[in-house]
Amino acid sequence: MTTVKEIRLKSRPVGLPNRDNFEVATVDLRDPGPGEVQVKNLWMTVDPYMRGRMNDVKSYAPPFQLGKVMDGGAIGQVTASADPKFKEGDLVQSGFGWREGFTAPAASVQKLDTKGLPPQAFLGAAGMPGLTAYAGLLRIAALKEGDVVFVSGAAGAVGSMVCQIAKAKGHKVIGSAGGPDKVAFLKEIGVDHAIDYKAEKDLTAAVLAGSPEGVDVYFENVGGEHLEAALNAAKPFARFAICGMISIYNATEPQPGPRNLALLIGKNIRMEGFIVSHHTDLIPKFIEELAGWVREGKVKWTETVLEGIDKAPDAFLGLFSGQNTGKMLVKLA
Amino acid sequence: MTTVKEIRLKSRPVGLPNRDNFEVATVDLRDPGPGEVQVKNLWMTVDPYMRGRMNDVKSYAPPFQLGKVMDGGAIGQVTASADPKFKEGDLVQSGFGWREGFTAPAASVQKLDTKGLPPQAFLGAAGMPGLTAYAGLLRIAALKEGDVVFVSGAAGAVGSMVCQIAKAKGHKVIGSAGGPDKVAFLKEIGVDHAIDYKAEKDLTAAVLAGSPEGVDVYFENVGGEHLEAALNAAKPFARFAICGMISIYNATEPQPGPRNLALLIGKNIRMEGFIVSHHTDLIPKFIEELAGWVREGKVKWTETVLEGIDKAPDAFLGLFSGQNTGKMLVKLA
Repeated sequence: MTTVKEIRLKSRPVGLPNRDNFEVATVDLRDPGPGEVQVKNLWMTVDPYMRGRMNDVKSYAPPFQLGKVMDGGAIGQVTASADPKFKEGDLVQSGFGWREGFTAPAASVQKLDTKGLPPQAFLGAAGMPGLTAYAGLLRIAALKEGDVVFVSGAAGAVGSMVCQIAKAKGHKVIGSAGGPDKVAFLKEIGVDHAIDYKAEKDLTAAVLAGSPEGVDVYFENVGGEHLEAALNAAKPFARFAICGMISIYNATEPQPGPRNLALLIGKNIRMEGFIVSHHTDLIPKFIEELAGWVREGKVKWTETVLEGIDKAPDAFLGLFSGQNTGKMLVKLA
Repeated sequence: MTTVKEIRLKSRPVGLPNRDNFEVATVDLRDPGPGEVQVKNLWMTVDPYMRGRMNDVKSYAPPFQLGKVMDGGAIGQVTASADPKFKEGDLVQSGFGWREGFTAPAASVQKLDTKGLPPQAFLGAAGMPGLTAYAGLLRIAALKEGDVVFVSGAAGAVGSMVCQIAKAKGHKVIGSAGGPDKVAFLKEIGVDHAIDYKAEKDLTAAVLAGSPEGVDVYFENVGGEHLEAALNAAKPFARFAICGMISIYNATEPQPGPRNLALLIGKNIRMEGFIVSHHTDLIPKFIEELAGWVREGKVKWTETVLEGIDKAPDAFLGLFSGQNTGKMLVKLA
């Protein structure tokens, strides 16, 4: 039997979460019974959508429970197996994040074939965030030849993949992120026109400076002022993939929507929200394309890594102050 | 030579237009030269989209010019022809509304085959408003079997056609309009659940009272609170056809968008704006289906008619106080 630490939801945040909403607990792991495995987590992910799960509200992902361990994506290694399909040392992917390890039915974890990629890539570029970028851009926004693409939150886990997938497919890309370091990163990954939104007074003008004729596709991660700018800068028949609106996740009052939403009509704009879990049929095609892009050096990724389970709340909180460039991860072992 | 009255834009409105923004002028009509026709207008249309044309703003329809006659759809009768394709008495459709008559190149008017319908129907149910309903419902919202449809502005020229087309195709329809007379009209045309939004405190609850499981399709004519209610009441994968937002056309300040727009994401909602002029390829199919529905008594229409060109501004202004049930028209002769 082993002892591990886990993160529990201590209280539900009002507005911006803080460390007091979390608590660290130590629990004993039972030995695996028949058909079970014991896993030591190597990496866990923190993602913006988890903010919604801290509220006691029914949504597409169930709310975290007060006083209970939180959950989310994790990559681990089997330390003991009582199931013939797994052996000690196997890498596995699971939904048992926010903890150093666990004992669970073998059927609740997936063996991970890394295909030569670092295992933690499957929490980012090759995982849910990468697939989100791929599905949003190709299926929801229906990217087609010649499209100019505008991405908000462009230096984040999803946004940086949107930029690179669009570039790999030969598109002009305008990316917005906060601060000079992120702008430098955007240039490094090939973004044609990188905007530091914190330094801009007129975001619409900043977008149009990158493409005076406007944009065909907008990939939305931020909401608020970014969505207004995208509507202003949209060409007729533009398509908007609405992936996230991190700017409003911590609002205590409902935030007004864009004041120029009626532009949808005159410009014949299509705006579509989506959740990646409805697009898992694209995984094989995505992984195949991604492997090619990685080989050709067209897609790379960056990570912001905090070490140790105690830092998991800080990693999560850092998402809302933009402390991550690329994927925010917690290294557990 | 004949003398006719026409309506000119005297000044651009700020906020809600009033009679002072219009002036009546009398002009002489020249006799038609070679290739021209002279037409006496019988009917002219006033439509909400014309409010946008009163502003000096580039949009999908060009702005009206100060001191010049306004324009819009009209049905008239040829009174003199110097073109072999037209003879006196022919019914024609044109864009030369807001005037009692005109002389113009024959190529700028279309001969009207009424197929037994009243001529003015081609300004309403069988014209642009009817096609807007048809294209928005079938192409933009991609209506499919079993969909529950919610329509705002349901007693208007477009809305009442949306209700009846959806009913003709076997759908459950929830319609919202202002006041008991309009609600009575909605019931008369077969709407399953008619909402008097002026009498409701909670519009979301009013929609859900008609369909507790939510709505699949929303046809947007109004904006504001109606759009918020539609987002709240939407089922997963709902489709919104965004046709108009009459509630904000007279606003002097940009109006905030829906405070619950982020519901697009979790519910995977698609929201698409459209202008009917991009869907004229549907006209033959629409007219064919419409003729069948009219024969079967499944589609009827009502008109609110004001008489005389002097009343044209009142007819137009009445749109914004909801004085029309069905199509607002001006009878000119």
